[in-house]
Amino acid sequence: MKPAKILVAQGGGPTAVINQSLVGVVLEARRQARVEAVYGAWHGMRGILNEDFVDLGQETSHNLELVAGTPSSALGSTRDKPDAAYCRQIFQVLQAHGISHFFNIGGNDSSDSVRIVSEEAVAANYPLRCIHIPKTIDNDLVENDHTPGFPSAARFVAQAFAGANLDNAALPGVYLGVVMGRHAGFLTAAAALGKKFPDDGPHLIYLPERVFELERFLADVKLMYERHGRCVIAVSEGIHDAAGEPILAQLAPQLERDAHGNVQLSGTGALADLLCEQIKSRLKIKRVRGDTFGYLQRSFIGCVSDVDQREAREVGEKAVQFAFHGHRDGSVAIKRVGNYSVDYELLPLAAVAGKTRVMEDAFIAASGTDVTDAFRLYLRPLLGSGMPDAFRLRPNPVAKILHPAGV
Amino acid sequence: MKPAKILVAQGGGPTAVINQSLVGVVLEARRQARVEAVYGAWHGMRGILNEDFVDLGQETSHNLELVAGTPSSALGSTRDKPDAAYCRQIFQVLQAHGISHFFNIGGNDSSDSVRIVSEEAVAANYPLRCIHIPKTIDNDLVENDHTPGFPSAARFVAQAFAGANLDNAALPGVYLGVVMGRHAGFLTAAAALGKKFPDDGPHLIYLPERVFELERFLADVKLMYERHGRCVIAVSEGIHDAAGEPILAQLAPQLERDAHGNVQLSGTGALADLLCEQIKSRLKIKRVRGDTFGYLQRSFIGCVSDVDQREAREVGEKAVQFAFHGHRDGSVAIKRVGNYSVDYELLPLAAVAGKTRVMEDAFIAASGTDVTDAFRLYLRPLLGSGMPDAFRLRPNPVAKILHPAGV
Repeated sequence: MKPAKILVAQGGGPTAVINQSLVGVVLEARRQARVEAVYGAWHGMRGILNEDFVDLGQETSHNLELVAGTPSSALGSTRDKPDAAYCRQIFQVLQAHGISHFFNIGGNDSSDSVRIVSEEAVAANYPLRCIHIPKTIDNDLVENDHTPGFPSAARFVAQAFAGANLDNAALPGVYLGVVMGRHAGFLTAAAALGKKFPDDGPHLIYLPERVFELERFLADVKLMYERHGRCVIAVSEGIHDAAGEPILAQLAPQLERDAHGNVQLSGTGALADLLCEQIKSRLKIKRVRGDTFGYLQRSFIGCVSDVDQREAREVGEKAVQFAFHGHRDGSVAIKRVGNYSVDYELLPLAAVAGKTRVMEDAFIAASGTDVTDAFRLYLRPLLGSGMPDAFRLRPNPVAKILHPAGV
Repeated sequence: MKPAKILVAQGGGPTAVINQSLVGVVLEARRQARVEAVYGAWHGMRGILNEDFVDLGQETSHNLELVAGTPSSALGSTRDKPDAAYCRQIFQVLQAHGISHFFNIGGNDSSDSVRIVSEEAVAANYPLRCIHIPKTIDNDLVENDHTPGFPSAARFVAQAFAGANLDNAALPGVYLGVVMGRHAGFLTAAAALGKKFPDDGPHLIYLPERVFELERFLADVKLMYERHGRCVIAVSEGIHDAAGEPILAQLAPQLERDAHGNVQLSGTGALADLLCEQIKSRLKIKRVRGDTFGYLQRSFIGCVSDVDQREAREVGEKAVQFAFHGHRDGSVAIKRVGNYSVDYELLPLAAVAGKTRVMEDAFIAASGTDVTDAFRLYLRPLLGSGMPDAFRLRPNPVAKILHPAGV
């Protein structure tokens, strides 16, 4: 049996459970008789370029379990997007170290990187098994029921809105929370799972799957504020006008772009502030508060879905099993089986790489500012066990003496 | 024995455990043989003015326990600050309902409201026992070791920075998180408890107890960025210049003020955005991200200190015991006994009301941008059990082949 040398890397934005996938790869690889080395690349593709490897065969299984439970990418990450020249340099390094299996944990940009490396390996006649392992809080990988990392971030968003709704009920006004998600509204839509009673917020949800019109937004807020005496709003950072131009881009003069050409939407409170200012000035509502969930929603330690943890571990483990029992490169995908269980498939890289899933129409209410029950049923099992719950005092009014009814 | 009628209210910003104190009052009051009614006022002092009461004698103990575990003020809150005329109206309502004991759960503004009501009651020869029950995430009540609500908010901030540090280590750059706290830096300082390894962030902490100078700030960031290749910064929303002018106020033209004359600092991402812009433009650092923790830090459901929960329950219970076994109005205060346990005292209202505690010098490092071990020892027991922990892969480098050392 030909000896195997494994290399694993992590790419893109960290998640609460990306290290579960890393440890799933490492422990399953160390279990294979053929495997003589398991390396990790520091900071993703860039670490391969720089030959910056850690020997994960010298790590204890105890510490691997502790790292698995730690959020964010333990190997570090990168936003590098390799082109053909970049890949040729990578092959030189992989060849020098005799790497036979490459696992990359990441989102759709990372899956595209794996696709390029895989194709370059074939073109260069270099024997390299390339497997992409899914991860993204945006839940925007096609062909997957959902992606590891999304359930834990969704849980954070749901809990955040459950709490913000209680806060807003105590001190009424308008509360607006901006949630990550460039093209896909899944994470913003998760705010709906923070709602328990019929009059609870979020009362309005704005997704990038629908065109955002400021005048309609203001009319929606006015209506909800009149109905409830308060209003809680979830807004995706990716909301855009009919031409596809981000609402934020219309505001900020110079926008940062990453190596993939994406405008930098996170890391600024500008969108929340702009929308709050509009509500204050146009609707004459005094107490208007905006929060931008920013990096908290993907990096907060201690808010994690146990279902997400288990599945993230499994996709790593399955990736190794597909690599050693299968005969082609691919991307591991999560398929839902029953209510609720999952199974895993290995899809061709081209079926997933570089494509973006957005929310299905069946998940978005006709109003365009709420989700459907189908979405609630889709998301709830992913959030896992032990979700905190909110309770209210029952009315039991005391009869007025000085101000009887009608006086 | 004279029959007693209890009224309880909640004031100021909600916390994760303010309902524990409410339920502590209600259950202990219902246990007293003399008590014939336990009322709650909806939305604090304003609810009294409007005679808007709920009969908490008709609430089940089971639901009270569920409400106790729910964050934010179950009775609703208010920012009203009563003057003498406001208080006279309140007396008319209390007298009409035969209220004998008034409990108000809140921070230093709320304690001042209790003081005014208490003094007006004496002046009006109205027999009313007034007890203030402490609550504030700012931890700025004098004469208290700490205040209920602060430990849970501090836990959120510590967990947020622990996660933000991991995220920043994976994708290096500058991360800046703005934390609540107008005059007192306790909550911002809690960021230090998110640090585990010597090179972990937060690398810099800016507190309202020290004068903020932009040039020094930029020099600090530059130094840390050069040292660690990244930098995580905790900034209090209340940072100000040598004249005491908030840094935010220098930025925003028109600032909202509440009934107490306080400038509105929260609910906007402007301070983080301003400071990030300075770092980008002056230090030429490309990846700079700012988050404003906003309302998440006080209302997030599911991040709570069990120590905080127990103490918040106890201050409510003790308030009733002081009212029925003591002979004067007052404010319940937490005193630390041993390491770690607490006891409770009833202080004169004037000793606490309207005063603001700030961080002791012994808690702030000489650099002015870190806390001392004394602060770490002070805060750690308050955060409670089950704090999530972060772990790293150990180095174990793989020898380079193509790029050996020095080449």
